[in-house]
Amino acid sequence: MGKNKDKQEFVTFITPRNEDFSQWYTDVITQTQLCDYAPVRGCMIVRPYGYAIWEQIQQAMDSRFKEKGTENVYFPMLIPESLLLKEAEHVEGFAPEVAWVTQGGSEKLTERLAVRPTSETIFCTMFAKWTQTWRDLPMKYNQWCSVMRWEKATRPFLRTSEFLWQEGHTIHASAEEAQEETLTMLEVYREVAEDVLALPVYVGQKSDKEKFAGARATYSMEAMMQDGKALQAGTSHNFGTNFAEAYGIQFQNKEGKLQYAEETSWGVSTRLIGAIVMTHGDERGLRLPPAIAPIQVVILPIAAHKPGVTEACEKLFADLKAAGVRVKLDDRDTVSAGFKFNDWELKGVPVRLEVGPRDLENGVVTYFRRDTCEKGTLPLEGLTEALKALMKEIQQGLYDQAKAFRDAHTYEVHNMEELGQAVDGGFARAMWCGEQACEDEIKERFNASSRNMPFNQEEMTFGDTCVCCGKKAKHVMYFAKAY
Amino acid sequence: MGKNKDKQEFVTFITPRNEDFSQWYTDVITQTQLCDYAPVRGCMIVRPYGYAIWEQIQQAMDSRFKEKGTENVYFPMLIPESLLLKEAEHVEGFAPEVAWVTQGGSEKLTERLAVRPTSETIFCTMFAKWTQTWRDLPMKYNQWCSVMRWEKATRPFLRTSEFLWQEGHTIHASAEEAQEETLTMLEVYREVAEDVLALPVYVGQKSDKEKFAGARATYSMEAMMQDGKALQAGTSHNFGTNFAEAYGIQFQNKEGKLQYAEETSWGVSTRLIGAIVMTHGDERGLRLPPAIAPIQVVILPIAAHKPGVTEACEKLFADLKAAGVRVKLDDRDTVSAGFKFNDWELKGVPVRLEVGPRDLENGVVTYFRRDTCEKGTLPLEGLTEALKALMKEIQQGLYDQAKAFRDAHTYEVHNMEELGQAVDGGFARAMWCGEQACEDEIKERFNASSRNMPFNQEEMTFGDTCVCCGKKAKHVMYFAKAY
Repeated sequence: MGKNKDKQEFVTFITPRNEDFSQWYTDVITQTQLCDYAPVRGCMIVRPYGYAIWEQIQQAMDSRFKEKGTENVYFPMLIPESLLLKEAEHVEGFAPEVAWVTQGGSEKLTERLAVRPTSETIFCTMFAKWTQTWRDLPMKYNQWCSVMRWEKATRPFLRTSEFLWQEGHTIHASAEEAQEETLTMLEVYREVAEDVLALPVYVGQKSDKEKFAGARATYSMEAMMQDGKALQAGTSHNFGTNFAEAYGIQFQNKEGKLQYAEETSWGVSTRLIGAIVMTHGDERGLRLPPAIAPIQVVILPIAAHKPGVTEACEKLFADLKAAGVRVKLDDRDTVSAGFKFNDWELKGVPVRLEVGPRDLENGVVTYFRRDTCEKGTLPLEGLTEALKALMKEIQQGLYDQAKAFRDAHTYEVHNMEELGQAVDGGFARAMWCGEQACEDEIKERFNASSRNMPFNQEEMTFGDTCVCCGKKAKHVMYFAKAY
Repeated sequence: MGKNKDKQEFVTFITPRNEDFSQWYTDVITQTQLCDYAPVRGCMIVRPYGYAIWEQIQQAMDSRFKEKGTENVYFPMLIPESLLLKEAEHVEGFAPEVAWVTQGGSEKLTERLAVRPTSETIFCTMFAKWTQTWRDLPMKYNQWCSVMRWEKATRPFLRTSEFLWQEGHTIHASAEEAQEETLTMLEVYREVAEDVLALPVYVGQKSDKEKFAGARATYSMEAMMQDGKALQAGTSHNFGTNFAEAYGIQFQNKEGKLQYAEETSWGVSTRLIGAIVMTHGDERGLRLPPAIAPIQVVILPIAAHKPGVTEACEKLFADLKAAGVRVKLDDRDTVSAGFKFNDWELKGVPVRLEVGPRDLENGVVTYFRRDTCEKGTLPLEGLTEALKALMKEIQQGLYDQAKAFRDAHTYEVHNMEELGQAVDGGFARAMWCGEQACEDEIKERFNASSRNMPFNQEEMTFGDTCVCCGKKAKHVMYFAKAY
C-alpha cells in the first residue's frame, strides 16, 4: 500500500501501449509497485508485490528441480580473479562487466575479488576437489542467489546490474548424460513458462556466435513480447569437458582410467517477471496468470454497512483460504469501491468478487475476470469449485491469447526485405546457410540480436537457400530484435 | 555423496568432544558434508546437506513471519558509501568490516560501494521515499540474502566473511507498536529455536554497550553450547526514531502533523546450523531434531537379495513419503550395511529402519533412534503413526537433554571468583549495578563477551549487591564466554 492509496482523487494514468510501449512498461511496473529504482547505479528494489510473484516462480521451478534430483547449495558471492581467469573464453565474455572488490575493512586486497557475474568458475574449483571416481557422479547442484553484471543501459527486471536468479551446475560421467540434463532442464523451463506463467516460448539452440562464454552448445527459450521483440527467458548450456579441462575435474571411470567430467549449467532470472508484464499486460495494467498470482481472488464488500455483507465476505474469505485459494479481503474503509476496482485491475488480480446486499439476496456474487474484463454472477453455492474452474479458464485464456499473438506475428520469410519487415514487429523464420557472415549481416542490418534454431529442423524446413547469401541453407532460424 | 563413500574400509574418525571441542566441531561439519572451505578468504560453501537444513529453518521462520504480516522484498547488495555514512553510530560499528567495490567493468567508481554488512541504511532511504502519511504504516519487510563482514578469525557457520541470513526491517507510527514488533519477532525466534530446532534459549535484553550500532535497545536469544559457551542465536532491535531522523523518514500523523517513524530490525542467520551441531552433536556426529532433519527416516534393506525385502522397503518408502515423512531409501549396493549405519548416524538422521527377511517374517521392522542410540522393533501395521510418535519423542528428548545440560551449567554467582568459575564451562547469573565499568571489568577479566538481561527481572533477582563492585544491584544478568 503505497503513498497514492490515500488520495481518492488519484486516477492511474498508464501510457497506451501503442503510443510508447517502453513507457507503458515503466508505468505498469512502477504503479503496480512491483519494483522501484534503487539509489545504486543500475539496481532495483523488488517490492513486496514483485517479490511475491518471484516466490511463486521459485516454487514452481524449485519443486521441479528437486524432482529431477537437483540439490540446492550456496557458494560464495566473491570469486578471486585468478579463478575467473582459468577458462579463456569465459573470462573474455564476462570480464568487461565484472564489479570488483578491492578493499576489505582497512585492508587493501592483494588479489581482486569479483562479485560473481555467474558461478561456473567457483563451482568447477569445488567439483575438482570433490570428484574422485565415477561413484561421485553425477553432482546436480543449484543455487538461488543474485549476480552482478556492470551494465550500461538498464531496465527493471529486464537488465539490471544486480539481478536475482537461479544457477544450476551439474557434472556427469558421460557426454550423453550431460546432454540429457541440458535438455531436461530446458524442458523444465518450457513447462514452467507455458503451463505456469502462460508464456508461449520457442525452444531451440543458439548459434555458435551466441552461445554462452565457454559453452559447447547453448539452448534457450524465447518469448515474444507485445511489441514483437524477443525476450530470452531461460538458457541451458552444455560445456562438454571445456571447463573440466581448465579446472581439472577428473574422475576414475569404471575402467579405472582418469577421465574429464562433462558439465552443464542452466539459469532463469527475475527477467521472467518482465516477460509476464510485457506478454499479458494491457491498458489497465497487469494481468497475472492465476498459477502465479500472489492474490488470485480479491473480495470487495459492497455497502459493507448493510446487514450480512461483512459476515458473508468474511465467510467467503475463510472458505476460499481453506480451499487453498490465494485470496484477499479488501475491507479498507479509507478508499472508495471505485478506487479499489481500479487498484486491483491495475495489479492484475485474476478474479474480483463483489459482494453486496442485492447479490446476497439472490444467493450469488458478482465476479469480474481480469483477462477479458467481463462481469457476471456465480451462485454462492459451489462457489469454490466454480472459481477454480474460472481460474483454469483464465490461465488457459491468457496462454491462448499470447500464443495467438505470437503465431500471428511470426513470419516465414524468403528474402532480406521480408526479414526486415518481419522483425519490425515480430519474429522472422528464415532458412540460413550456417555461416557467421550471414548471421552478422542480418544482425547488423536489422538489429536482429535474437537468433534461435528450433529443434524440429526437418519438419520446419521450407526452402533450400539462405535468406541472406542465397547459398545452400542448412538451418531454420528464428530472427528477432531482442530485449 | 563425497569421495569417501567408495572406500568401504573408511572409518570416520571424529575427535572426542572432551578432548578438543573445537576440533570435534570441525570434524563433524566437514565429515557430514554440511559445508566446505571456499577458495575465498573467510568464506564457506554450504553443501547440499547443510543447505537442506537451512531450507527447513527458512520454512519454519518464513511462514511465521508471514503470519505476522511481514512481506518479503529484495534490496540491492551494494550500498553507496554516502548512504552508509548518514547514521554515525552505525557507521562506526560497521565500517571496519566492510568490503568495498571500487571498480565496475573498466570503470573506476567515483564513489565506493559497500557490499552490504546489513541493510538498515538502504531500507531507510527507501522508507523515506515511500512514507507519506499514517496510512502507509506499518511497513513490515524482510529479505533472505547474504551479507558480508570482513572478519579476521572465521569458523564455518559461526563467523564467516559472507553468511546467509534474513533481515527484517519495519517502520511504525508509534513507539508502542515498534516495541511490540521488536518483542513479537524475538518471540518468533524463540519459538522456532525451542520448538523446531530443540535449542533451549535465554531471551532478554543486551546491555547498552552490547546493543546493535544505532539501536535504542537490542534483544537477543542466547543458546548454550556443549562447551558451556554462549551462542547468540538471534537478535531483534528497536531503533526508536534514531535512523528515521538520520534518513528523514517522516509521515503526516492523524492530527496532520509531521512525525518521525519508529523502526525495528531483526535477524537470524546460518549460525543457527552451528548452534544445532554444537547443542545436539555427540561422538558419532550429528543428531538432528526431526522437525528440521532433511531426512527424518532412512530405510536400509538388509539382505536385499532375499525375496520380499526390496519390495517391502519400496512400499514402506512410498507409504511414509505419502504420509509427509521426509524419508530416504538407501539401496546402494556399493557399500556395506555397516558402512551405511555409520554414515547415517554420522549425518544425524533421527530414525533408521532396518528391514530384513527375519523382520518381515515377524511383521516388524527394526528401528534405531539416533538421540539415545537405542534399538527396538515396531510392528509393520500402524508403522507410520508409530514413527510419527517416535519422532515427537525424539524431538522432545533432544530439547529436554539440551535444557537439562544448560540448567545444570547455569550458576547463580555471588562474587567474582564464582563468576569466573561459572563462565569456565557455563553461564553465570549475577546481580549487576548497571555501570559499564563493572561490565567491562567482568568482560575483560573472564572474557565474558556474552551479556544478556532476562525479562523477568523481578522474579529472577536473588541479591541486592553488584557481583563486581558491591554497590546496589539494578539488574540480573547472564554472563558467558561467547562464540
